[in-house]
Amino acid sequence: MSRNQTIALDAMGGDFGPEVVVPAAHLALKELGQGSLHFIFYGDEHKINVHLKKNPELEAVSTVHHTDKVISSSEKPSVALRTGRDSSMRLAIEAVKNGEADGIVSAGNTGALMATAKMLLKCMPGIHRPAIASVFPTKQGKTIMLDLGANITCDSEILVQFAVLGAVYARAVGGTPNPSVGLLNVGSENMKGHDQVRAAAAVLSSVDFPGKFYGFVEGNDIPMGTVDVVVTDGFTGNIALKVAEGVGGLMGGYLKEALHSSPLAKLGGLLAFRALKQVKERMDARFYNGGMFLGLNGICVKSHGGMDAFGFSRAILVAANLVDNGYNERVAHEIEQLMSQESFFSGLDSRSSEDS
Amino acid sequence: MSRNQTIALDAMGGDFGPEVVVPAAHLALKELGQGSLHFIFYGDEHKINVHLKKNPELEAVSTVHHTDKVISSSEKPSVALRTGRDSSMRLAIEAVKNGEADGIVSAGNTGALMATAKMLLKCMPGIHRPAIASVFPTKQGKTIMLDLGANITCDSEILVQFAVLGAVYARAVGGTPNPSVGLLNVGSENMKGHDQVRAAAAVLSSVDFPGKFYGFVEGNDIPMGTVDVVVTDGFTGNIALKVAEGVGGLMGGYLKEALHSSPLAKLGGLLAFRALKQVKERMDARFYNGGMFLGLNGICVKSHGGMDAFGFSRAILVAANLVDNGYNERVAHEIEQLMSQESFFSGLDSRSSEDS
Repeated sequence: MSRNQTIALDAMGGDFGPEVVVPAAHLALKELGQGSLHFIFYGDEHKINVHLKKNPELEAVSTVHHTDKVISSSEKPSVALRTGRDSSMRLAIEAVKNGEADGIVSAGNTGALMATAKMLLKCMPGIHRPAIASVFPTKQGKTIMLDLGANITCDSEILVQFAVLGAVYARAVGGTPNPSVGLLNVGSENMKGHDQVRAAAAVLSSVDFPGKFYGFVEGNDIPMGTVDVVVTDGFTGNIALKVAEGVGGLMGGYLKEALHSSPLAKLGGLLAFRALKQVKERMDARFYNGGMFLGLNGICVKSHGGMDAFGFSRAILVAANLVDNGYNERVAHEIEQLMSQESFFSGLDSRSSEDS
Repeated sequence: MSRNQTIALDAMGGDFGPEVVVPAAHLALKELGQGSLHFIFYGDEHKINVHLKKNPELEAVSTVHHTDKVISSSEKPSVALRTGRDSSMRLAIEAVKNGEADGIVSAGNTGALMATAKMLLKCMPGIHRPAIASVFPTKQGKTIMLDLGANITCDSEILVQFAVLGAVYARAVGGTPNPSVGLLNVGSENMKGHDQVRAAAAVLSSVDFPGKFYGFVEGNDIPMGTVDVVVTDGFTGNIALKVAEGVGGLMGGYLKEALHSSPLAKLGGLLAFRALKQVKERMDARFYNGGMFLGLNGICVKSHGGMDAFGFSRAILVAANLVDNGYNERVAHEIEQLMSQESFFSGLDSRSSEDS
């Protein structure tokens, strides 16, 4: 891949700011090779430069845009919109809007990032709402799930659009030529669930879109990797994501405790150390870091606020991959294709009457 | 505790029928002691007696009610209601309705069991809808969560009733004098979530009920055990439950695979065998088997269809504990108390206008 991209980085976001964001950019650059990436850092010039000076190769491909203003992690999105002018986050997003950067990555306040990105970048033509999407480890490999929290309620049309956003990702970036798409529900039968998922299923069964519709999937199908793309509303998706993280943490804690419970268990844990480390790595959230804001006129990726440099570097790579594979151009094409189909609109018509 | 209860058992439900249900009753009897429990088995007399003959102490406290009819696991609830007369499941529920039994346990078709139990037993006065509730292992101990799938959508009044159903369980059966109750949401701030959870939170903040309202909890709070009672709608609860089961299975699989990946890992796993077994037991679904149908005029518990005798015996114990602790009597009292409070109705009034 011949990249020559510019990534805008909100250097002040997350729990650690430039201390993590600058070394993360260096790791991403090492991963893709010199000349692949350029960076514009937004934030406290002095703090950024302290870390930039340590990496001459990075410094050579970086620009620093100074600002004192930072949106705090506790700021309400509405307040961030009103008062966030000149903040590191807003300036970084503006760089994408103005064409100075190809994508933006921030570990800042999720609500503020989404609100600002929506306001500045706006939804792509034909897309009603952006979704937050992320990739998860499964028994089969990887699955992309969306929405993870941007939209508390979603009508069937929005769910269908999310299916397209997810399928295009799986095909263009995930390398799955004909991705399977499942709608998250409480059972696999047609009659299950609320009106919105049933109407979305009816539409997805009848339209051509860049994947194949599998039908309904249940909560356990996410970790099993039954489908390549799991589509759900942001309320359910956010809770599913956090339950998965929580159960992973609980089991990890149980295991650690057990392997310290006796000298024999300790010895066993020591002998199996490498194997256990592999398990830990397979579940390591850092490898899957990078919540993609899909459906906007611009690539925007959210890093988890508590990530270290390695974790943040993965979010940068997620953004770089979306840019490099022309994700947004492909979505534009597929949404146009979708909207040219009569079965899309007739399906939605029947949905409207069911929903009301 | 001085028990002298009769439990009606749908002997034909689940993947194994009497082969599991009869030995399960024996295990429950051994657990609580001779004289504590009586059983009425509903189903194929011949198949039941084959297993009953092997356990004279059990046979001495058991009655068999023969029927040929069985509701299959794939039957739609509506069909089960129409054609299920004289089925083992329906007869067992009727025993509770007629006062012949104190509770009923079935491993059969969940939808049919709920529909039949609702039709025959009906909701308790003041309760609009029954909920499915279950107890889960957490970092802190145990948490009860409801609804796990009986109600796809729930308005705020129903969520408040579920809070009472859960809190009474935690107090009466779980032994927590002042249980904390959380509403599952996508964030802890007041403004988060949809109208229903926000209105339910407003009511729970203002009324007296048999617990203390913690506020909103997120998906990871379930395994962390942040609260004693987690309240949610059946769509979200069902998906959260299945995600948790799925992630547990995925991690268990990863671990098993890793401990077979090299001779050294195998040896380590062998040495740590007892410790690892402990972890497995802590996550063992059999210990937590027993989905309680709460809010009905009668105790009804659903066992997982694939459970072995030990697992099914836990579901019997769940039913016996509900009966023994006078769960339904306490709920009746608390719902009456709730409905006597002006702040309950004024809260719901404000909810109605918000919801519309």
